[in-house]
Amino acid sequence: MISTATAADKAQIADITARAGVFSQEEIDAVPAMFDEYLRYGAEASGYHFIIYREGEQLLGYAIYGYRDLTDGVYDLYWIAVDPHARRKGVGRKLLQACEEAVRKIGGRLIIAETSGTEEYAPTREFYLRTGFVNEATIKDFYKPGDDLKIFVKRI
Amino acid sequence: MISTATAADKAQIADITARAGVFSQEEIDAVPAMFDEYLRYGAEASGYHFIIYREGEQLLGYAIYGYRDLTDGVYDLYWIAVDPHARRKGVGRKLLQACEEAVRKIGGRLIIAETSGTEEYAPTREFYLRTGFVNEATIKDFYKPGDDLKIFVKRI
Repeated sequence: MISTATAADKAQIADITARAGVFSQEEIDAVPAMFDEYLRYGAEASGYHFIIYREGEQLLGYAIYGYRDLTDGVYDLYWIAVDPHARRKGVGRKLLQACEEAVRKIGGRLIIAETSGTEEYAPTREFYLRTGFVNEATIKDFYKPGDDLKIFVKRI
Repeated sequence: MISTATAADKAQIADITARAGVFSQEEIDAVPAMFDEYLRYGAEASGYHFIIYREGEQLLGYAIYGYRDLTDGVYDLYWIAVDPHARRKGVGRKLLQACEEAVRKIGGRLIIAETSGTEEYAPTREFYLRTGFVNEATIKDFYKPGDDLKIFVKRI
């Protein structure tokens, strides 16, 4: 049910991003632009690998990861988004596993997931902790005053 | 003696990068590409602000900074490079001060400088500590095994 995304997935990806409930308008707007770069230049050159989880016609979630420039084997997990109607079915975990396998195959050593320290993102932080990430670094007031950057690292 | 960079500075910027002695070949190759984006799209749209320090005809150093997407007032200090023949003249410090003033003017709150934890970068880390940065986070084995990421933060 997991595959790389194609042009036909664009509308459903945008729709899930808007309905996920945790992204800012700026973030919601960023995804189609990243997806266009992915379609136009490919995953390697754009730096954005899009993978999707689908049941039949229905896209239930997607993830974006990409190589961090100037490192040896570091990949950023930019985004995991799951349809709110498909929570608690392990979609996020399956997307993460697929990212990990893909990153391992291309020689990756580290996956970095950056997220916010606010209450709203507590489920996201718990998800990363449950799936083997460690919160190795924090930058206070990063996104805005009162909103810290939490850097989660998984060594694969 | 500090100004924004123009097309005429490209060769001297590349030359200083190559002679600085601390950059990898990949990093040396990255600078002209960033500079071309800066010239083509401008500092705002490219995300790369280039400033230079010049004495007469001679370019003695340059710095690159840029807005970190999806934050409120965070700027990355990507690079400060000084001609090895012009060390200990305060060129780096003046470039940093100019970056800080520019960032403050456009509403910036934080400047982030990421560097390596290896012995080779000890002078760089000492420079940041001397100029008011704090090493707020470390990711072990980031650049490669044995080569940590050190995140320095200055709150302005």
